[in-house]
Amino acid sequence: MVYLTRRYRFSASHRLHNEALTAEENARVYGKCNNPYGHGHNYVLEVTLAGRIDPETGMVYDLGALDRTVDAEVIERFDHTNLNLDVENFRQRDPTTENLCIEIFNLLGPKLKGNGGAARLSRVRVEETNSNSFEYEG
Amino acid sequence: MVYLTRRYRFSASHRLHNEALTAEENARVYGKCNNPYGHGHNYVLEVTLAGRIDPETGMVYDLGALDRTVDAEVIERFDHTNLNLDVENFRQRDPTTENLCIEIFNLLGPKLKGNGGAARLSRVRVEETNSNSFEYEG
Amino acid sequence: MVYLTRRYRFSASHRLHNEALTAEENARVYGKCNNPYGHGHNYVLEVTLAGRIDPETGMVYDLGALDRTVDAEVIERFDHTNLNLDVENFRQRDPTTENLCIEIFNLLGPKLKGNGGAARLSRVRVEETNSNSFEYEG
Amino acid sequence: MVYLTRRYRFSASHRLHNEALTAEENARVYGKCNNPYGHGHNYVLEVTLAGRIDPETGMVYDLGALDRTVDAEVIERFDHTNLNLDVENFRQRDPTTENLCIEIFNLLGPKLKGNGGAARLSRVRVEETNSNSFEYEG
Amino acid sequence: MVYLTRRYRFSASHRLHNEALTAEENARVYGKCNNPYGHGHNYVLEVTLAGRIDPETGMVYDLGALDRTVDAEVIERFDHTNLNLDVENFRQRDPTTENLCIEIFNLLGPKLKGNGGAARLSRVRVEETNSNSFEYEG
Amino acid sequence: MVYLTRRYRFSASHRLHNEALTAEENARVYGKCNNPYGHGHNYVLEVTLAGRIDPETGMVYDLGALDRTVDAEVIERFDHTNLNLDVENFRQRDPTTENLCIEIFNLLGPKLKGNGGAARLSRVRVEETNSNSFEYEG
Repeated sequence: MVYLTRRYRFSASHRLHNEALTAEENARVYGKCNNPYGHGHNYVLEVTLAGRIDPETGMVYDLGALDRTVDAEVIERFDHTNLNLDVENFRQRDPTTENLCIEIFNLLGPKLKGNGGAARLSRVRVEETNSNSFEYEG
Repeated sequence: MVYLTRRYRFSASHRLHNEALTAEENARVYGKCNNPYGHGHNYVLEVTLAGRIDPETGMVYDLGALDRTVDAEVIERFDHTNLNLDVENFRQRDPTTENLCIEIFNLLGPKLKGNGGAARLSRVRVEETNSNSFEYEG
Repeated sequence: MVYLTRRYRFSASHRLHNEALTAEENARVYGKCNNPYGHGHNYVLEVTLAGRIDPETGMVYDLGALDRTVDAEVIERFDHTNLNLDVENFRQRDPTTENLCIEIFNLLGPKLKGNGGAARLSRVRVEETNSNSFEYEG
Repeated sequence: MVYLTRRYRFSASHRLHNEALTAEENARVYGKCNNPYGHGHNYVLEVTLAGRIDPETGMVYDLGALDRTVDAEVIERFDHTNLNLDVENFRQRDPTTENLCIEIFNLLGPKLKGNGGAARLSRVRVEETNSNSFEYEG
Repeated sequence: MVYLTRRYRFSASHRLHNEALTAEENARVYGKCNNPYGHGHNYVLEVTLAGRIDPETGMVYDLGALDRTVDAEVIERFDHTNLNLDVENFRQRDPTTENLCIEIFNLLGPKLKGNGGAARLSRVRVEETNSNSFEYEG
Repeated sequence: MVYLTRRYRFSASHRLHNEALTAEENARVYGKCNNPYGHGHNYVLEVTLAGRIDPETGMVYDLGALDRTVDAEVIERFDHTNLNLDVENFRQRDPTTENLCIEIFNLLGPKLKGNGGAARLSRVRVEETNSNSFEYEG
């Protein structure tokens, strides 16, 4: 089993805010991330696939196919957007980077199966800033 | 003359849009950066001071004083904001990173003179993304 | 289960030396790291917590609480110190980065339980230099 | 159990090409990597050992011994070479980075046993570019 | 005057060899870089433009136009090639990174004039490895 | 004129302290850097040479000769030392990174002249931490 990790980047803005909480509670829970007009990040996304090496190609997965899937499912959807206002995925839940990780995993997982090789999605890692990153393995 | 460069980070959102242009012109000039609800970045700020070494301290500038000035003038003002909607400095001009560089240079320059040493502000550099950076030397 | 990793930095000096060994043995085992007056590093610390997302906040752990714990237990204790001479934790054992990892894991583990969420400490990773890093998972 | 990871670098060229495929198939599978005269990379190699801390030295493995083994088995063999034409290991299989990972794991594993400590090779990770990396754990 | 720097990446192989020197002289001058079958690098290219901010757009140069020019003149020409065998620019001179810098400067300079703004090419910087970089300012 | 920059690394400890000042003054001027037993850093050194390309070699300077000079003058002298106690250069002046820059420039400048090419030392840059760097151009 070999693990292939490919790195992508997108920039977006978000605001952390829970409608069910009071203004004071939101300020306490989210701090500056609750600023009404939002703020933004350069997100770094790392997608890890696990698979066996295809004896014909010497590769685990077709990188061109991977790029097309990640572009269509993730970059097109999230890049240069306001995650709260532009993206349907965050109508019901806060666009924390934790939720973003799970959302991306669920978007990519089914599309990567049987497409370009026998590998499967193993892990999604998202860096929010130089200090914070989050991982989800399904 | 020794150059001291200190690195800071802040996260903000912005939208590039010129009211004097039509929607089509804005889309052509700014591309995805014209998205109505904005997007965001982790900005990396590098502040460079030029000065002679103080023979008593062996240093060019008091880093504590530099941090207090940059925090008060830049980080407090821009971090976790929407540059278009939260920051008075961008009421009249677009928050492009080019303008952000000049704005930061003009905010810091006068405050750094004669404060904590004989050094003067030499350069402001702002990284908008992993691919783009901008510098202004006054 | 989502993994949250947060990065911290501290600078310290240390000397590797085992009193039970002869001078020649120390020189052979530790090389330049046995230099009598010590040397130093910029340590990069990554703290990883594993937990479920709190449905109310969308987050795994309160980052403010995490920062306060890491500052109190690690940064205050180790930053800008001589690990051999200033830090009680290394009276009995050499401040190798291996031991530093375990020490930090043991300092943080109990404090992070039940504080700011249901997450638990999963891993401590310390980079000693650009070339060397160490991980401990308890 | 503590994990020690040490980073090495080497530069090499390669060409991806499967003799059993037609020119068109090779072009489709490998894209620009099939260019007849090859291209190259700065490979970053991370070698991870897992072991218990030696109570006498406070260390998991003798870094000098590790460097000598990696230099002899990997760097001498692959650095500043054309992987297809200079390296016997890739006579029979394509020098994809997936195969390079496995090859390096198999070269290092037996040599690291019982040499300089009780640790064992746990993982080999190779970065091919800023975007792509591969891992193999045996 | 604001300086805009944009970063690009390409991978290529090369061999350093001067036909006018003997085999011994080539080996002495170029060391491992004289290996007959070549080796390769992930080159990082930074292109710096100097210009005034366009008052209508708030920008120094149209990044889309810059990307199209760099892609056409540099990336298409050098990416995934063998610089000695594939690229006409290095028929007469060795593809050292010094020469690569000058070549790229001369390719881009005329094309960037009057295209997308009043800015002019100010500097080309190429990183050959993590340790070596070269700059040329015309 | 082409600029060649080569990166080196060394680890050392230091203490900032001026004997002519009182304990209170030292604490105020140097903060945590005045800790009696010192602390340390992984210093990153960048040495920049300016020169014309040698038409015979296509290079600005012989990198092997540069490495030998930097190793002998800088790395051997400063790596894995306590800058205050081990290094004669800092008997009379504080080992601030500002002073370290000038010291390294003065050590390298005369040795690099006429050795391996017509280039001359143009700049020395030292990163003390991820946040602070210093440059000196003679």
